[in-house]
Amino acid sequence: MRPRELPGLALSLLLLPLLLPPCPARSAARFDPTWESLDARQLPAWFDQAKFGIFIHWGVFSVPSFGSEWFWWYWQKEKIPKYVEFMKDNYPPSFKYEDFGPLFTAKFFNANQWADIFQASGAKYIVLTSKHHEGFTLWGSEYSWNWNAIDEGPKRDIVKELEVTIRNRTDLRFGLYYSLFEWFHPLFLEDESSSFHKRQFPVSKTLPELYELVNTYQPEILWSDGDGGAPDQYWNSTGFLAWLYNESPVRDTVVTNDRWGAGSICKHGGFYTCSDRYNPGHLLPHKWENCMTIDKLSWGYRRNAGISDYLTIEELVKQLVETVSCGGNLLMNIGPTLDGTISVVFEERLRQMGSWLRVNGEAIYETHTWRSQNDTVTSDMWYTSKPKEKLVYAIFLKWPISGQLFLGQPKAILGATQIA
Amino acid sequence: MRPRELPGLALSLLLLPLLLPPCPARSAARFDPTWESLDARQLPAWFDQAKFGIFIHWGVFSVPSFGSEWFWWYWQKEKIPKYVEFMKDNYPPSFKYEDFGPLFTAKFFNANQWADIFQASGAKYIVLTSKHHEGFTLWGSEYSWNWNAIDEGPKRDIVKELEVTIRNRTDLRFGLYYSLFEWFHPLFLEDESSSFHKRQFPVSKTLPELYELVNTYQPEILWSDGDGGAPDQYWNSTGFLAWLYNESPVRDTVVTNDRWGAGSICKHGGFYTCSDRYNPGHLLPHKWENCMTIDKLSWGYRRNAGISDYLTIEELVKQLVETVSCGGNLLMNIGPTLDGTISVVFEERLRQMGSWLRVNGEAIYETHTWRSQNDTVTSDMWYTSKPKEKLVYAIFLKWPISGQLFLGQPKAILGATQIA
Amino acid sequence: MRPRELPGLALSLLLLPLLLPPCPARSAARFDPTWESLDARQLPAWFDQAKFGIFIHWGVFSVPSFGSEWFWWYWQKEKIPKYVEFMKDNYPPSFKYEDFGPLFTAKFFNANQWADIFQASGAKYIVLTSKHHEGFTLWGSEYSWNWNAIDEGPKRDIVKELEVTIRNRTDLRFGLYYSLFEWFHPLFLEDESSSFHKRQFPVSKTLPELYELVNTYQPEILWSDGDGGAPDQYWNSTGFLAWLYNESPVRDTVVTNDRWGAGSICKHGGFYTCSDRYNPGHLLPHKWENCMTIDKLSWGYRRNAGISDYLTIEELVKQLVETVSCGGNLLMNIGPTLDGTISVVFEERLRQMGSWLRVNGEAIYETHTWRSQNDTVTSDMWYTSKPKEKLVYAIFLKWPISGQLFLGQPKAILGATQIA
Amino acid sequence: MRPRELPGLALSLLLLPLLLPPCPARSAARFDPTWESLDARQLPAWFDQAKFGIFIHWGVFSVPSFGSEWFWWYWQKEKIPKYVEFMKDNYPPSFKYEDFGPLFTAKFFNANQWADIFQASGAKYIVLTSKHHEGFTLWGSEYSWNWNAIDEGPKRDIVKELEVTIRNRTDLRFGLYYSLFEWFHPLFLEDESSSFHKRQFPVSKTLPELYELVNTYQPEILWSDGDGGAPDQYWNSTGFLAWLYNESPVRDTVVTNDRWGAGSICKHGGFYTCSDRYNPGHLLPHKWENCMTIDKLSWGYRRNAGISDYLTIEELVKQLVETVSCGGNLLMNIGPTLDGTISVVFEERLRQMGSWLRVNGEAIYETHTWRSQNDTVTSDMWYTSKPKEKLVYAIFLKWPISGQLFLGQPKAILGATQIA
Repeated sequence: MRPRELPGLALSLLLLPLLLPPCPARSAARFDPTWESLDARQLPAWFDQAKFGIFIHWGVFSVPSFGSEWFWWYWQKEKIPKYVEFMKDNYPPSFKYEDFGPLFTAKFFNANQWADIFQASGAKYIVLTSKHHEGFTLWGSEYSWNWNAIDEGPKRDIVKELEVTIRNRTDLRFGLYYSLFEWFHPLFLEDESSSFHKRQFPVSKTLPELYELVNTYQPEILWSDGDGGAPDQYWNSTGFLAWLYNESPVRDTVVTNDRWGAGSICKHGGFYTCSDRYNPGHLLPHKWENCMTIDKLSWGYRRNAGISDYLTIEELVKQLVETVSCGGNLLMNIGPTLDGTISVVFEERLRQMGSWLRVNGEAIYETHTWRSQNDTVTSDMWYTSKPKEKLVYAIFLKWPISGQLFLGQPKAILGATQIA
Repeated sequence: MRPRELPGLALSLLLLPLLLPPCPARSAARFDPTWESLDARQLPAWFDQAKFGIFIHWGVFSVPSFGSEWFWWYWQKEKIPKYVEFMKDNYPPSFKYEDFGPLFTAKFFNANQWADIFQASGAKYIVLTSKHHEGFTLWGSEYSWNWNAIDEGPKRDIVKELEVTIRNRTDLRFGLYYSLFEWFHPLFLEDESSSFHKRQFPVSKTLPELYELVNTYQPEILWSDGDGGAPDQYWNSTGFLAWLYNESPVRDTVVTNDRWGAGSICKHGGFYTCSDRYNPGHLLPHKWENCMTIDKLSWGYRRNAGISDYLTIEELVKQLVETVSCGGNLLMNIGPTLDGTISVVFEERLRQMGSWLRVNGEAIYETHTWRSQNDTVTSDMWYTSKPKEKLVYAIFLKWPISGQLFLGQPKAILGATQIA
Repeated sequence: MRPRELPGLALSLLLLPLLLPPCPARSAARFDPTWESLDARQLPAWFDQAKFGIFIHWGVFSVPSFGSEWFWWYWQKEKIPKYVEFMKDNYPPSFKYEDFGPLFTAKFFNANQWADIFQASGAKYIVLTSKHHEGFTLWGSEYSWNWNAIDEGPKRDIVKELEVTIRNRTDLRFGLYYSLFEWFHPLFLEDESSSFHKRQFPVSKTLPELYELVNTYQPEILWSDGDGGAPDQYWNSTGFLAWLYNESPVRDTVVTNDRWGAGSICKHGGFYTCSDRYNPGHLLPHKWENCMTIDKLSWGYRRNAGISDYLTIEELVKQLVETVSCGGNLLMNIGPTLDGTISVVFEERLRQMGSWLRVNGEAIYETHTWRSQNDTVTSDMWYTSKPKEKLVYAIFLKWPISGQLFLGQPKAILGATQIA
Repeated sequence: MRPRELPGLALSLLLLPLLLPPCPARSAARFDPTWESLDARQLPAWFDQAKFGIFIHWGVFSVPSFGSEWFWWYWQKEKIPKYVEFMKDNYPPSFKYEDFGPLFTAKFFNANQWADIFQASGAKYIVLTSKHHEGFTLWGSEYSWNWNAIDEGPKRDIVKELEVTIRNRTDLRFGLYYSLFEWFHPLFLEDESSSFHKRQFPVSKTLPELYELVNTYQPEILWSDGDGGAPDQYWNSTGFLAWLYNESPVRDTVVTNDRWGAGSICKHGGFYTCSDRYNPGHLLPHKWENCMTIDKLSWGYRRNAGISDYLTIEELVKQLVETVSCGGNLLMNIGPTLDGTISVVFEERLRQMGSWLRVNGEAIYETHTWRSQNDTVTSDMWYTSKPKEKLVYAIFLKWPISGQLFLGQPKAILGATQIA
């Protein structure tokens, strides 16, 4: 049977030799607050098996919902004319970004509806921006009074509501994004002026919030971002990670990324993200993640986007297949509206992805990379494998006009096809 | 060649006898203000040729953007709990529907972007709600001071901006919807209490506005709606239509519908609409129009709709094909947002329809109905024709699993296929 | 005993001859719609006896509460920089005057509290701006849908609430101000362009509202204003007044003023107002009224006024005494806030006036003018009289430093003081 | 000469013996962080000489401007029906106190106009609520991001603007009120739950803000308030005061009050305040201050107050005279509006006070208490003195009806009046 509206097909072939060694048992070792020790931690297995997650950028930036989630920065710091004009045309002169806070009502936010869509998409984990660079926390942070979702705007604990409903779905894991720095926090700016010799901000804000967040919501992914140009020593990242791995309630299952201070990206931490929309096209020796957006131009919702700004389902499937074939996970981003809805176009893409995965998920979930990642003869043909089951999957993204597929990578031995 | 993502194919067959008589030259006759005279007017030819138009429901109801464009009525008159709760949860007790007016900002409204999308959809005309039952006029009506788009909300002449850009596209015609009655207008309510013996409302509001609208914006479709239970005599519909056909600046090209007073629907006026989402499935002796919605549940935009509420492109194509095969025009509705954007899901559907029509439009535009409307052997197979070119088009909506199509209606004569 | 904080003292002297003829019984004559006939109507006696009323300017202009109740005109028509800057500094560019409507909440409006203060002030009547030049009606006018106090802002029938509470106080009469024209009403502007040959505005707006107003609220003063440069024929003022005097429910007690069309002021109608703050300083042959403001610069409330902008109680008492001595009534204006409160400074002035009148009211209420209005020897000494009681009142506004008063006008005859 | 509208007269009498010892030269001693050491500090002389100051309660509570500046507490914590109803009637259910922040526009705030009025009142110092129990800071506190007057509402540094203009007036000194605790700050609440064993709040909020405030704005009065039930050890009050007296830029001139932790009031610190509206009516051995309100019921502005809620000028003068006679200073409170204006009734009272002081100030400013505070024979007769000039002032608040004053306290010796 051929799926009509979605291209891509998983072919099952016999796999002879095993590609990857068996997972060693998890060491119960304690970690020191050094990169050497921390980097040696083995990534909990669930993450590599999951392959596909959903990234959710939501915050006060969803109120102007214009241009980018970097709205505040572009408007006030870079003074990009498009943003300056937008504010001048639509708001009183004295209007400040903070005034958007009360307008972030989230009045239709329904965590269960969101989770239904996430499940239908085939994703195995989600990552929510618990706090973006604007500093607004989606939970009632004790350290962000009056600039959090309990005190202003939604008047609800968004992180908690989503956590509860996600945990009720056994096939979904709950992760949190957290921005270390905040563009305009006065204590951060003061620290920055001191070339980060002062450390008021991490001590009174970042670190207390990180501990609060992990202890309260027990995220299984901690997706750090935004070092603000400061080194990991400023943030005390290794100290925090040692606690996270040794002591925290999620020490056994949590995964983190590589954004823990200037210079740490693509080098230290858990899985590598390297850059936004990172999709190298070849195998990497370290587990990595491609975080990318359905709206090509923004992570936050944009009211004035057009359909040409959105990746098509074909393009999204391609991202997933390429990424997984090269050993990465795909973290596909949506931006909910200020009302708390997932706009219909995002819902459609997610559900289409789910339709594709219900047919082809066997070639994605819990797979490993293969000897080759893509085919030398047929373009847009990608490989994954299941060494234990001796399976190789060849996924092609375009139906061949000729009706015949030629695979260059599998090698025939004897009467069989040797694919190792 | 097979269109990959969109089903439906137009087959050209030879057509022997002509189905329809040639159009007589337009009589320059004057019309009397009687249905007998008015109903005898021949519909300007462009309308039947156009086949496909876009209906736009936009107004203050786009601000709550919740439930239905009948929001005001359901909340205040019928007191449907869902609406009552929504208001109680989100607004101060004294908030009235009129308070939504200033929030209808239309801040991203760009008539040119709209027109680009309409053209891309393959539609040949548009119909905009110049005034819905709420009474808010999208132009600066002299008779609706402070309850119109110039004085409140957009602060722009929406009707004019759209008219200008539509007229600049030679393949699009400009039409206006206008609600005769207004749910809560005090003069209408007073007339209603008198069983319509008083006629303050039509005299001081409806009729002046209709003349103003036609003279100022010269719509080529006047899509009347909402008789409020009053007969056409109350509205002086025949008097107005006689002026429209005899004297107005659009007397030669204007078409109207059949909603001109209690009892007139499906009986008097121009083309018949009969009921919302009218799609009889068989040939009608009088030109008709199927006005329907992409969002199955509402004409106005709903923020909280999900993807399952929207018809798929396959379902929409089916509506078009069935309608045209049975002699109707399709008027497919979208509801713009309060910001003035066409939401991405509507844009996607419209552009998908355009993709289909760019391939298959030959079997739709300027066609006539055929001897049979659909096929007796193969279901979901519909016919149109071009008698002058001796062509019949067979449109099938599902690709046959067998790979073979069997047509029951065309009859073979001699060595050829006789299809008349 | 000497009143400590308020100057002014009423001296009772014997009055010999009667100054004024007794009131003739009210003729039951019918009035023709001509000034000749209407001007001959005798003013109902209560008005001259009342002497002191309170004018209330309240409307949407109370929302910006800045500069003047002519805010809209000064901002949009005259473009006076102060107003233009105020709007630019505080509102989005697209903000219109109509957007102030929903902000006019009147949330603390309590008609009973108002009436308590009015009674305490010693006033005998009030005049409320039922509609100012902005067109917003403080009652639910059928002819001003969505631009009235029921549909927008207060969501209450302000005129009715005040009427009911005022009528419950037997010593207060209820009057209404009504602006004939409206600055920006499109129908008025169209009529104006035609040099008032067209009469759409009075026919569909002004006259229906005037009839509705009189029939519904039965004001005993109808205080017309704002002819917009149009003659009384345009407004059909004589026709309306003939109805008011012959047929209306208040035909026996209503009084009107002289502002009924270009050229009528100080010439036709009921009592004369001549100009704002009219206080001629000498006797007039026709009953007149001095309408003036406690805030020297504005009729509407101004948030940014300082104490030096307000007349002191001494200055207000002087206005009253001068006015009454010269045959006028004093109509003293206050401007309530957008919240519906009478600001404390207004309340203080009104209560101080009441304190003065409780002591000295005998020399004000129901008095007549005397042979002389003021004294030739002692300045700031004013006379009133009660001919029937053979009394003359000498009111002095400054306590004489010498401790002795010299009156130049009363003439001594025989052993008595002849004062005629 | 007799002041007409304001009662009270200063009589100069000969004073024989000196009542008070000469001021010792200020010791340059350093203070230890103990009450014993701190309490020994001599109050800078200017404060006792000044006698009369103005208290200004301004903050987000000025937005609802209803009931009390304790609005938040009464509404959310005590749930007093009046407050609960007010919110229910006027705001959406989800509205929180924080949502009032952006509405605190201060759009007419003009520090110079304020200072003009303060000068005209005869006050010698002002005390502004730099932060009330709500936590909103009127300066851009680094430790109150997004809940301060720079980030939200006014978008201006209110403290700085007022400081600058006050310092430009050589006869006015600048003081700041600061609430130690904050009703709803999560860190304070957490500390409180620990019975103040935890000290997160003073360490990360109160103390940093106090240092920032003193260093930046150099207030000469630091008017502490609100210990939240915590002892001075929790607040580290003695540590802070030792810094204030030893090191701070205002160490030589600053005065503080006695509200530095549970149990400190009326016992430790600088001048004593003991309780709100403290006016003991007899001499105290320690310098004290009577802080009281013109609006009898509230420190913050109330939109719905009536004139009977305000003290009259006679009552205010009485407060001043009684207080000064008994060795206190009067700190008379006004509450500006959310617009930043001083309402006209407050302005009138302040200017009336100034009028009185221009005549009678000699008996107030720089005076000392006398042997007796008030008279035994004539009530409402109060004494002050200037020992160096050998003067005693007898101030009477009611004009004697008899025209004669009898003083019981001064004693005649020989031919002179002995008053010691």
